[in-house]
Amino acid sequence: MGFEDNIRKVTPYTPGEQPENKVIKLNTNESPYTPSPRVMEALRGLDWDRLRLYPDPAMSALTESIADHYGVKPSEVFAGVGSDDVLSMCFLTFFAGNRPVLFPDITYSFYDVWAEVYRIPYETRRLDEDFRIVPSDYYGPNGGIVIANPNAPTGIGESREFIEDILEHNRDSVVIVDEAYIDFGAETALPLIEKYDNLIVVRTMSKSRAMAGMRIGYCFGNSRLIGFLNDVKYSVNSYTLNLPSIAAGKAAIEDSDHFREIVGRIKKTREKTAVELAELGFASYPSDTNFIFTKPPEGYKAKDIFLRLKEYGIYVRYFDKERISDYLRITIGTDDEMHMLIHILKEIIKK
Amino acid sequence: MGFEDNIRKVTPYTPGEQPENKVIKLNTNESPYTPSPRVMEALRGLDWDRLRLYPDPAMSALTESIADHYGVKPSEVFAGVGSDDVLSMCFLTFFAGNRPVLFPDITYSFYDVWAEVYRIPYETRRLDEDFRIVPSDYYGPNGGIVIANPNAPTGIGESREFIEDILEHNRDSVVIVDEAYIDFGAETALPLIEKYDNLIVVRTMSKSRAMAGMRIGYCFGNSRLIGFLNDVKYSVNSYTLNLPSIAAGKAAIEDSDHFREIVGRIKKTREKTAVELAELGFASYPSDTNFIFTKPPEGYKAKDIFLRLKEYGIYVRYFDKERISDYLRITIGTDDEMHMLIHILKEIIKK
Repeated sequence: MGFEDNIRKVTPYTPGEQPENKVIKLNTNESPYTPSPRVMEALRGLDWDRLRLYPDPAMSALTESIADHYGVKPSEVFAGVGSDDVLSMCFLTFFAGNRPVLFPDITYSFYDVWAEVYRIPYETRRLDEDFRIVPSDYYGPNGGIVIANPNAPTGIGESREFIEDILEHNRDSVVIVDEAYIDFGAETALPLIEKYDNLIVVRTMSKSRAMAGMRIGYCFGNSRLIGFLNDVKYSVNSYTLNLPSIAAGKAAIEDSDHFREIVGRIKKTREKTAVELAELGFASYPSDTNFIFTKPPEGYKAKDIFLRLKEYGIYVRYFDKERISDYLRITIGTDDEMHMLIHILKEIIKK
Repeated sequence: MGFEDNIRKVTPYTPGEQPENKVIKLNTNESPYTPSPRVMEALRGLDWDRLRLYPDPAMSALTESIADHYGVKPSEVFAGVGSDDVLSMCFLTFFAGNRPVLFPDITYSFYDVWAEVYRIPYETRRLDEDFRIVPSDYYGPNGGIVIANPNAPTGIGESREFIEDILEHNRDSVVIVDEAYIDFGAETALPLIEKYDNLIVVRTMSKSRAMAGMRIGYCFGNSRLIGFLNDVKYSVNSYTLNLPSIAAGKAAIEDSDHFREIVGRIKKTREKTAVELAELGFASYPSDTNFIFTKPPEGYKAKDIFLRLKEYGIYVRYFDKERISDYLRITIGTDDEMHMLIHILKEIIKK
């Protein structure tokens, strides 16, 4: 018996590539626009002498701004190092039972990775042939439920009634609604936290707030659930968000004008791109996100197009995975970037 | 059966208070000096447009500087959100067996918290009457070993031979040496990573590099161990250090002059303070850290002095815990701060 027997061996999540060179990067759903200028101001105005001190472990300046912005109580807000940290802490906190946690077979591919690393039993439920979640699949006894709304990588959003139906049938489970992309469409479940004491709604500043580089995520839930989450967080790492993150997050949440402006632009570009893709024979799902999930025209393989685009310096996401290997997930960039994408796709398709 | 049955309920670690007002803060072992001016330059010179993009998940700019500085391979370095994140990931990765993990009864009080949250079996081994680790306590079969060197909150450091003896007797366990305070004294175990493939040496930038507010920790081990650690990290959160942290960490590690300067000053102030405390009748352990662990003179209770100092706006650390409730842990501040502390202690003691 050697020490290797005690090592937790896992197959990690594979993030999209981060190429260093000048490319058109449409593969990891980042914003093509810079964050609010107030973020820069906040960072430049930091009291650097405070860097020697630990940051506020409760991150109150940030959680209070978030609470204020969304009209909830600060005790109903939790923040972490990206929504991945928030979701990971939620898995660790709320899914400590023996019954299987349920989520769709096609969804954010980190859910099964967290379940594996924390040894949480789980089962996936098959999306229907149109890649829609079937609510009745989530009615039986379970150890928890995770629904991404809008779902990824499909981009399909569901209504609040849809989410509430799942909540109604699961008063004995914590239900996590991962709303990473909610600002680009679909209806938030946030108002339901007052009615359902088993609901957690997760958000991120990486997409609609254009701050993937800061790593700030947050979630909402009733004060008691958030309390348990904080207990686990304080048992893993007392101080997660650093001084710059707390300041940048607060500044970002307070600039609604900039937020609306860049989200609006992305939605407009998305609609234009959807039409242009359709003209080329691509079949796309209607998107409520900052990406389009699309199937190349008859006679073209998604993987080949993915590789050809890469040769041209355009990175999109391809998942070599059952049921979705015929699709590409294309992040919405600037108008110019999408124009270039369509231009190159025309080259590829006509040959 | 309700959803609360599935919730992981834990008793979290309690960090030292972070008072907002103007006080003398000698309670959380922060540096009284600002970080390297190169850190400020690096932060001010950041390409803010890159904030919209995810940071490099491998944090290569940082791990390569660390490797270069310490003369190891980049594949032998891992970094995280403070040494708490690094240690937490180490517990999750290396202590996944059924045998109990061993650490001293008096040590960094996060070890048992991580063991609890990850449901890792553990046993503590009693420090001897002089608060020294007894190596033979760690010779039997076990699921892993954690030694803080220098130890906290005692401040006592052990030699490299001492650590090597424990390694020699534990070729079947991963041995973690937590060197959070190593730069203030004691001998590092770092060179032993070439000889022992089961050794992890953990460091932080929060103390000697004066950057508690950035949350940067790192560790060393052979490439295979670091590989397993990375697999778990990528299964919890792909991107842990944000863009500012990677830049600040690199700048800090590259400024050896500033580092030596501030560490030297703290050591000088520590020796002066130790003498002055002794003159007041305090019994202190020889410290290899940036704090002094000390027992008030006959007739004075540690807790009372802790509370009296707080009234004067001087925060030190008191642990209401068996075996150490007669002691105070006092962080080394500037000469002026320590002068004020001694002045007030004289007031308290003479009354």
